[in-house]
Amino acid sequence: MALAGSVRTVRVLGLDPGLRHMGWGVIDVAGNRLTHVADGTINTNEKQDLATRLTTLHDGIMEVIRLWQPDEAAVEETLSNKNPSSTLKLGMARGIALLSAAKAGLPVEQYLPMLVKKSVVGTGHAEKEQVQHMVKMLLPGFQRSTADAADALAVAICHAHHAQTRRKVDLAVLGVRV
Amino acid sequence: MALAGSVRTVRVLGLDPGLRHMGWGVIDVAGNRLTHVADGTINTNEKQDLATRLTTLHDGIMEVIRLWQPDEAAVEETLSNKNPSSTLKLGMARGIALLSAAKAGLPVEQYLPMLVKKSVVGTGHAEKEQVQHMVKMLLPGFQRSTADAADALAVAICHAHHAQTRRKVDLAVLGVRV
Repeated sequence: MALAGSVRTVRVLGLDPGLRHMGWGVIDVAGNRLTHVADGTINTNEKQDLATRLTTLHDGIMEVIRLWQPDEAAVEETLSNKNPSSTLKLGMARGIALLSAAKAGLPVEQYLPMLVKKSVVGTGHAEKEQVQHMVKMLLPGFQRSTADAADALAVAICHAHHAQTRRKVDLAVLGVRV
Repeated sequence: MALAGSVRTVRVLGLDPGLRHMGWGVIDVAGNRLTHVADGTINTNEKQDLATRLTTLHDGIMEVIRLWQPDEAAVEETLSNKNPSSTLKLGMARGIALLSAAKAGLPVEQYLPMLVKKSVVGTGHAEKEQVQHMVKMLLPGFQRSTADAADALAVAICHAHHAQTRRKVDLAVLGVRV
């Protein structure tokens, strides 16, 4: 890696959207090296009205961004095959995730669950437990947390791999060998 | 109407959520009297990424609220029976509508399309054209505009009727005859 000494550290925020639980995870990416920074879940109260719950999600994400200062954001593009009501709620949560990142000035990408699994486990048909196991292997700092936080970190890892590939392609186009 | 002289004017913002076109309409409600204030549509560019489009919707609604200073907001609770992808997009747009109103400090209610039609036309199975016709009858100030803006005004009218009913019930509970 000729450029190893000059590799910039990019801080990535991963988001796993859900109306009840919004998982989030922050990692530092320096070339191939991934470091766990922080993770958690923003929970909403099912007894509250929708507008209040969406505000809780938005304010929570903005607070995470304020505290951890990520450079880029990645959101899981879950395709619900359950009932339309669940799909609507998922759309709302995903909309809030995308809007919050954009309002904070972060470039934001979306990744399909299959791509996230493939990036982390090596196959697009991995079980949830395998994803969590691999997140722990790839990010030693990650301790026991919620499944939603682990999924959010997996999205951040997926983004790291793809952003890196994009940068390599950009450099190749410029004639730089890495 | 014993209380007619003391009827407070409430300004209502109606929103008809859509990712491509977000209809909005503002009316003043003073007892039974409805007055058209303003209406329009916030359009997003399909070629732009989702985060940018959601930001356009959010910023647009915030600007409408800043300009017209409504007291309350009402959002149409459309239930999509189309494909899951459309339902997701609808969820995103509705989420942004609810969040924007809540972030601006407005109390926000949701109304099902059938209830909106029943409030405006008198039956829950009215055609779109009937709704537009009745909105023009009920709000003489409303000129030719988009179908989405007319729908948004219909939601505001529906809210006016229901809010009024709620206030009457509140007064009845207090023993006040209206």
